[in-house]
Amino acid sequence: MPMDIRTSMQDMGRRARAASRLLAGASTGAKVDALRAVADRLDADREALRSANGQDVAWAIESGVDRPLVDRLVLDDRAIDRMCEGVREVAALPDPIGAVSELDYRPTGFQVGRMRVPLGVIGIIYESRPNVTADAASLCLKAGNACILRGGSEALRSNRAVADSIRAALEASPLPADAVQLVPTADRAAVGDLLTLDEYVDVIVPRGGKGLIERVIRESRIPVIKHLDGVCHVYIDDAADLDMAVDVACNSKTEKYAVCNAMETLLVADGIAGRALPPLKARFDQAGVELRGCERTRAVIDAASAAEEDWYEEYLAPVLAVRVVDGLDDAIDHINRYGSGHTDTIVTNDYARSRRFLAEVDSASVMINVSTQFADGFEYGLGAEIGISTDKLHARGPVGLEGLTTRKFVVMGNGEVRHR
Amino acid sequence: MPMDIRTSMQDMGRRARAASRLLAGASTGAKVDALRAVADRLDADREALRSANGQDVAWAIESGVDRPLVDRLVLDDRAIDRMCEGVREVAALPDPIGAVSELDYRPTGFQVGRMRVPLGVIGIIYESRPNVTADAASLCLKAGNACILRGGSEALRSNRAVADSIRAALEASPLPADAVQLVPTADRAAVGDLLTLDEYVDVIVPRGGKGLIERVIRESRIPVIKHLDGVCHVYIDDAADLDMAVDVACNSKTEKYAVCNAMETLLVADGIAGRALPPLKARFDQAGVELRGCERTRAVIDAASAAEEDWYEEYLAPVLAVRVVDGLDDAIDHINRYGSGHTDTIVTNDYARSRRFLAEVDSASVMINVSTQFADGFEYGLGAEIGISTDKLHARGPVGLEGLTTRKFVVMGNGEVRHR
Repeated sequence: MPMDIRTSMQDMGRRARAASRLLAGASTGAKVDALRAVADRLDADREALRSANGQDVAWAIESGVDRPLVDRLVLDDRAIDRMCEGVREVAALPDPIGAVSELDYRPTGFQVGRMRVPLGVIGIIYESRPNVTADAASLCLKAGNACILRGGSEALRSNRAVADSIRAALEASPLPADAVQLVPTADRAAVGDLLTLDEYVDVIVPRGGKGLIERVIRESRIPVIKHLDGVCHVYIDDAADLDMAVDVACNSKTEKYAVCNAMETLLVADGIAGRALPPLKARFDQAGVELRGCERTRAVIDAASAAEEDWYEEYLAPVLAVRVVDGLDDAIDHINRYGSGHTDTIVTNDYARSRRFLAEVDSASVMINVSTQFADGFEYGLGAEIGISTDKLHARGPVGLEGLTTRKFVVMGNGEVRHR
Repeated sequence: MPMDIRTSMQDMGRRARAASRLLAGASTGAKVDALRAVADRLDADREALRSANGQDVAWAIESGVDRPLVDRLVLDDRAIDRMCEGVREVAALPDPIGAVSELDYRPTGFQVGRMRVPLGVIGIIYESRPNVTADAASLCLKAGNACILRGGSEALRSNRAVADSIRAALEASPLPADAVQLVPTADRAAVGDLLTLDEYVDVIVPRGGKGLIERVIRESRIPVIKHLDGVCHVYIDDAADLDMAVDVACNSKTEKYAVCNAMETLLVADGIAGRALPPLKARFDQAGVELRGCERTRAVIDAASAAEEDWYEEYLAPVLAVRVVDGLDDAIDHINRYGSGHTDTIVTNDYARSRRFLAEVDSASVMINVSTQFADGFEYGLGAEIGISTDKLHARGPVGLEGLTTRKFVVMGNGEVRHR
């Protein structure tokens, strides 16, 4: 960076704000054409992308970075294909911008409605995977927003190459190239500067581990769309179909361990514990999942003893806390107290209890008879996902294009004036 | 307060959270009955209300509080009638809670929809008017939220009396009395404690002057729904109907001065300035409005000279900044640069320009041919208003019941499990 970091970040903010004004007025056609051009350009630039990525990977291996992290860093031909495909899919999504809803006449004579518009400028802070650069940029563009991207230092060369391709495609389009800007330095101070650019940035979306999210929450002077924890529950009601209960509970845990929508605590109604726990134990043993149970659980099956901390724990690993509860009320209380408001499911065939669970569990996704692992934007039909929010304001649950927009009131009159 | 303030606020938070769990499950009928009982009780308790208010007013006059502030403090029979009527109107509003929208089947076999649910616990910090205690409490209740209210110290006795009546009515209802709690002390430290109760409070709504709002923004660890400034614009396009333009501009300024939706800067297209400014000047002179104009304005009419600061100023007084602009682009640039994103209107009969103004002005309310003074929740048909937000996330513009709710995803399946 030629100037000092703070000045340089201010300058990026100013340019992003100017670009966002142009984007807000861009037609759907212009945005679709530009996104297709971005995909074509990434495809054409694949040699440069692989080469830049090769340097990042070599550096990571030399520096002794953990193998799973190196794997996530790799941008090979298959990853580039997927990245281009992702951009084309975003291009094909319906444009949310400009839609006016609830446009009604008021007794005073004018019409009032609500128009969906871009948020403006979005700051995205992420780790490792360089494909996020293209994913995030294309979602922001489609929703009419400019973005400032800050990726992980280990992927800096890859991210730069991806961002260069995107900007080259935009330069040949009617949209401003400054719609997509990448922070070109690995200096950690740049993150702090980005988080305080409240004059230019409307929202921050952090994507990464808990350490990153906590830093962002602590330092940001800009609203943040985030999720911190996924302490998800499956509650097996005594009116559950036993086979379904075992399948849903096992899938919620074992389909993938290191994901935020994996079950971390299993709640079983007292009335079905004697029948449900033994087959569950057999399935979890087979999968190699360590069980940590309450006393009532341990009276039925072999399990380590769960401590109070276990009910709060997001293991992201083959470990599961198991608790026998009296029934629905007890289950809802447990979830609302210990859960993280991410995703919780009941397995039951009882109509009234299924309705109460849906209404009273205070989480972003509340489910009946479905694996928690379905909680994501693609499975919900949002077409894409920028992240999952466990906040209640603005966006809650999987966040697609709509979460990158806002609504303003539009009023169309005929010269009406007010007399109070 | 019996305990120290911090402990006492924690305790209020815990009780509010517990009450919010019960409220989330309350039926529409129970909420309507409770709100009607609240209105009846306030009506029946009017002698106690007037007496408590009399002490506040006497104390305010003795302390030399400004007359307009004392006026706002007065809770006479007419104000009590209006307060009761307001609570009954909120009772009669449609219940937003529980509505499920966009409930669609996914290819995987389950249904996904979005259910409107309460936010949980709302902290409201306000100044002077004791009727806000009943207004805010009834809106929170109707949307299924518990609230913690903190009014101005000068209205402490009045607010206590109102809150006591509300709680007495709730105690005789199926809803928990702790749904409405008033901070019973004038100690300013209690505000700081409320703003950091992030474990128990989901959102803070400040209602008051700029000093209050700025303190809340600075100290809150909880999301805030607020508006800071109302620097509203009227842009008179050269294709405007001249009479309509003069009427809308004058009404936007003079209908009320000290309101956030009053015009503070008038923009006039160069092509119509020669015809529009003289009749505007005549009307504003008659109303006693001081004009501060740019050089091009001063070439047409007599006006003081506007400084750069004037374009940022929320006068809330009979003072108006006036600027001649080249045309639509110049007007949009000015509004997006100097405005506060509150409410802006164009007067024009040009179809294309009216559409561009609507799309490109980045404000909570964007209007065509209507006085800015119409920007409020009642005029927009929201039925009520807890405040006006100039933020972009969650609630933007006048905030009614919907702004006190959120949506969660609900998923209804038949035992589906995921295989990636």
